[in-house]
Amino acid sequence: MSREFKTVALWGRLGDRSVMEPAQQVLAHLRKRGIAVLASVPSDAARGFDDAKHVDERDIAATADLVIAIGGDGTLLHAARNVAARDVPLVGINRGRLGFLTDVSPEHMLDSLDAILAGNFLAERRLMLAAGMEDTAGTALFALNDIVLQKGDTGRLLDFTTEVDDTYVNTHRGDGLIVATPTGSTAYALSCGGPIIQPNVDALVMVPICPHTLSDRPLVLPSSSKIRVILDNAGGSDAHVVCDGEPLARMAPADVLTISLAKQAVTLLHPRDYNYYELLRSKLNWGRAGRDRQKGLR
Amino acid sequence: MSREFKTVALWGRLGDRSVMEPAQQVLAHLRKRGIAVLASVPSDAARGFDDAKHVDERDIAATADLVIAIGGDGTLLHAARNVAARDVPLVGINRGRLGFLTDVSPEHMLDSLDAILAGNFLAERRLMLAAGMEDTAGTALFALNDIVLQKGDTGRLLDFTTEVDDTYVNTHRGDGLIVATPTGSTAYALSCGGPIIQPNVDALVMVPICPHTLSDRPLVLPSSSKIRVILDNAGGSDAHVVCDGEPLARMAPADVLTISLAKQAVTLLHPRDYNYYELLRSKLNWGRAGRDRQKGLR
Amino acid sequence: MSREFKTVALWGRLGDRSVMEPAQQVLAHLRKRGIAVLASVPSDAARGFDDAKHVDERDIAATADLVIAIGGDGTLLHAARNVAARDVPLVGINRGRLGFLTDVSPEHMLDSLDAILAGNFLAERRLMLAAGMEDTAGTALFALNDIVLQKGDTGRLLDFTTEVDDTYVNTHRGDGLIVATPTGSTAYALSCGGPIIQPNVDALVMVPICPHTLSDRPLVLPSSSKIRVILDNAGGSDAHVVCDGEPLARMAPADVLTISLAKQAVTLLHPRDYNYYELLRSKLNWGRAGRDRQKGLR
Amino acid sequence: MSREFKTVALWGRLGDRSVMEPAQQVLAHLRKRGIAVLASVPSDAARGFDDAKHVDERDIAATADLVIAIGGDGTLLHAARNVAARDVPLVGINRGRLGFLTDVSPEHMLDSLDAILAGNFLAERRLMLAAGMEDTAGTALFALNDIVLQKGDTGRLLDFTTEVDDTYVNTHRGDGLIVATPTGSTAYALSCGGPIIQPNVDALVMVPICPHTLSDRPLVLPSSSKIRVILDNAGGSDAHVVCDGEPLARMAPADVLTISLAKQAVTLLHPRDYNYYELLRSKLNWGRAGRDRQKGLR
Repeated sequence: MSREFKTVALWGRLGDRSVMEPAQQVLAHLRKRGIAVLASVPSDAARGFDDAKHVDERDIAATADLVIAIGGDGTLLHAARNVAARDVPLVGINRGRLGFLTDVSPEHMLDSLDAILAGNFLAERRLMLAAGMEDTAGTALFALNDIVLQKGDTGRLLDFTTEVDDTYVNTHRGDGLIVATPTGSTAYALSCGGPIIQPNVDALVMVPICPHTLSDRPLVLPSSSKIRVILDNAGGSDAHVVCDGEPLARMAPADVLTISLAKQAVTLLHPRDYNYYELLRSKLNWGRAGRDRQKGLR
Repeated sequence: MSREFKTVALWGRLGDRSVMEPAQQVLAHLRKRGIAVLASVPSDAARGFDDAKHVDERDIAATADLVIAIGGDGTLLHAARNVAARDVPLVGINRGRLGFLTDVSPEHMLDSLDAILAGNFLAERRLMLAAGMEDTAGTALFALNDIVLQKGDTGRLLDFTTEVDDTYVNTHRGDGLIVATPTGSTAYALSCGGPIIQPNVDALVMVPICPHTLSDRPLVLPSSSKIRVILDNAGGSDAHVVCDGEPLARMAPADVLTISLAKQAVTLLHPRDYNYYELLRSKLNWGRAGRDRQKGLR
Repeated sequence: MSREFKTVALWGRLGDRSVMEPAQQVLAHLRKRGIAVLASVPSDAARGFDDAKHVDERDIAATADLVIAIGGDGTLLHAARNVAARDVPLVGINRGRLGFLTDVSPEHMLDSLDAILAGNFLAERRLMLAAGMEDTAGTALFALNDIVLQKGDTGRLLDFTTEVDDTYVNTHRGDGLIVATPTGSTAYALSCGGPIIQPNVDALVMVPICPHTLSDRPLVLPSSSKIRVILDNAGGSDAHVVCDGEPLARMAPADVLTISLAKQAVTLLHPRDYNYYELLRSKLNWGRAGRDRQKGLR
Repeated sequence: MSREFKTVALWGRLGDRSVMEPAQQVLAHLRKRGIAVLASVPSDAARGFDDAKHVDERDIAATADLVIAIGGDGTLLHAARNVAARDVPLVGINRGRLGFLTDVSPEHMLDSLDAILAGNFLAERRLMLAAGMEDTAGTALFALNDIVLQKGDTGRLLDFTTEVDDTYVNTHRGDGLIVATPTGSTAYALSCGGPIIQPNVDALVMVPICPHTLSDRPLVLPSSSKIRVILDNAGGSDAHVVCDGEPLARMAPADVLTISLAKQAVTLLHPRDYNYYELLRSKLNWGRAGRDRQKGLR
């Protein structure tokens, strides 16, 4: 991929102390290089970003050639849903701990950005999901990690049915269901017993949340699958649809949630030394501690 | 797929009572239709198969246009490894309970076979694995379900390292490792916490067996992945390599096991009403009993 | 235990069709034997229960010598919380499927009741939990199965800290926490990865729900343990406290939920042929189907 | 517990470099205090232990008032099985990483030992298991962690039946079964999906290894339970009985393994600041890293 980055947007909670400092460093660095910088800055932080053009978050995708998300994975997920339609590539700088998505560390961020601006990067396409309520004129919901059906406040279990490509799969009872991309497989889905799916695998995964039937296990599907989730509850239970951690819709009994691959994907740019497995080892404490790693001790 | 089946082989423990009867019915039926039938029959059962041409198991793939495996999934797995190189398609008739692979029931087998012989079937390509010891002139090992590295009699844990496409993945400690195809995802891998992988997903899964580190979780990889497993044990532990349930090799410390997709795949023929999800529901007791399925009772 | 049962209460949704019929049979049978029968009957079903004394649910424990719960496990759980303070024994008749707690089947219920009335039964003490908000004059919450801390509608994860007997245990992140009795170990806790705890074990179990940290595993504690759960969330997340499936309280950040054994226990009466392991086998589909149970097939 | 420790034994691989040095420091320290020291020293390390009385491992329990195990948990497990019959208390010094059982760190070991010798310690009784083959005059097998039934080299699954207190529990298929004490619950059993059991809980846990039936889950039992495991395999599969990691017996089809609490328990002495939950947090990486611990990032 060969691109020229003339206009770069900063994305994140620029008013937060932990984000403001690296964001200002990035801003100064980019301006020195003659690159236009866009930012959506809260009013009380505006003076710290005098050199940036202040634009509304929703307008960033239309103008920027590159978005730099600074914060945690949640920040990049939010950016991804906003820029996906325009296919603006994303770089993630973590503001503290390494993230699965914000893989550029603050210490090396200026060098990493220079390399990326020089075209020296790994570009990676990450699948996104689109969801919607069937027979409803509602807007589509997008997610880079996962679309989650979850029970409401009442604590009542959900009864729901799943179909894949118009074929009945199963009738489930439990706390809900996650449909995750490979990117999302290391997020909530992992906590619910799902597998880790390497980002190059062309698949989705359907993970039941705390299922009543113990054999109701995670199911990996082709990424082309059309998933339908029908809420069965007769008892008046309500359910929520949560996209990348944000509750965006409600479901009533008999409502049908459809989930499939979004037309748009997200392009993540990484430094050349990006290593997915190293990220896994770091985030999952692999190899390190464990209960005991000396020979013969178990 | 349009094929003509002139020579059909019967595969299975033809001397076992539960297999002999359906096998003889199939034999009579095929002969009536003028089809040549091959069979590898033990001497004490030979008289029951007078109408078949008795050939050695290893020669069946060279001559048959179609192999009918009668028995359990283990029988079909064994047949698959023998016929894969010649790409002879397989049909599986279960001799009692429904199998994941032997999905034709004895009650409908003659009708199902007639349909298949008439070209009225679903043909499905199933990925196979090839494994071998690096730097060894040993023959390659094949598997339709899984290649398993497992600890030996001593009960000592294995320490081993995994690499994918020449990139270091993790250092593991535990009872071993399963590398499974989508077909094998519902076999041993499922007992070890792996996900169910729909057969159309172009992927493999690496499932650690009883890992010491609790975050050492199943990892789904592109089917094109080249996997290397290096046995680290300094303490003299030995390990076994088991292919589709048959122990076929041993590993000593520092030995390297390589696993990747086999060039050959297996073609399974199913009746038109074949339904993968129905198989899952049946084999995993989905939807049925569970602990409790009445509304509001949990 | 030698008791005389002169006044027996019927408990359940007596207006529901599936409950009404067995309830009326039991009523007629008990009246024929000269036993006084109490029932809390909805007005539209009153005519079907002319022979019973209609009392308010809350007054039943004060007068009855025995409570017969008809329905599912949820019905008996509800009865248990109402009668525990008075130590009135309970019998559970399932209205359809076998329950863990409603173990008397409708077909044998009259014989079973006769035996129980004749003093021919197994009496079993089941531990109950008491929970409350620290520093609040609120009433105590009781549960026979479990006290659950769960996230609210927002879908935001909960951060919370646990202490046992005034000793810090862990800082958790996830969907919540279950504290269950042995009785509750086969309910929600089992869906969340908890162990089955035989009812005679003098223990509680603390099961994290979908924990972010994969090594945050179920912890079995002595039944005498005093558990404190402190909600840490700074972000304004709210949490719910659910007792035996009923949401009974809310928690705000910094609130402290205390959980310990209730002073009262529940006495369940079972027919002499009651067999806990048979219940497990039946409810968990043990031994039966499974994926495959024939020799050598896996 | 008030004891006087006049004769103390050193236990461990005293010839190993990592153990020899702390062992010699302890030896010198104890001799300075006028305490007799016993040690089982390999001949090539004898000169480093001139001040100790060299005795055979098996004779240590008869003479020592206290055993100091230096090494990993495996070293202390081995010591426990040797001294349990005489009820000699144990202290565990880890030779590198913290162990669940060897909880005294080398840096503080001399201070910790002084405190313990002065009677300033926490004494803790830990349950042990006794196992044996029914109808065999074989010696009983003991374990502080676990008794494990595991499949042999052939890789064939085991079919076996369990009974508790002469009541049939389940028919299992899989890689085997672990029966663990609370002490062993954080060892192999944890890798197989078992719960953590606090050491004061009066219970055992039965954990199936990679069970074929997904609902075949860990079962916590009263510590008084008499467990019988009957090997069903008709197919000639053999099984091994492994005690605290050492394979000590074989089972043939129809053999019956009995497991129950041993009459003897082990007494562990800990420094006053011993904290079980801190050990768990340290060994299981609780609270620390995890995938991500910053607010709002998941």
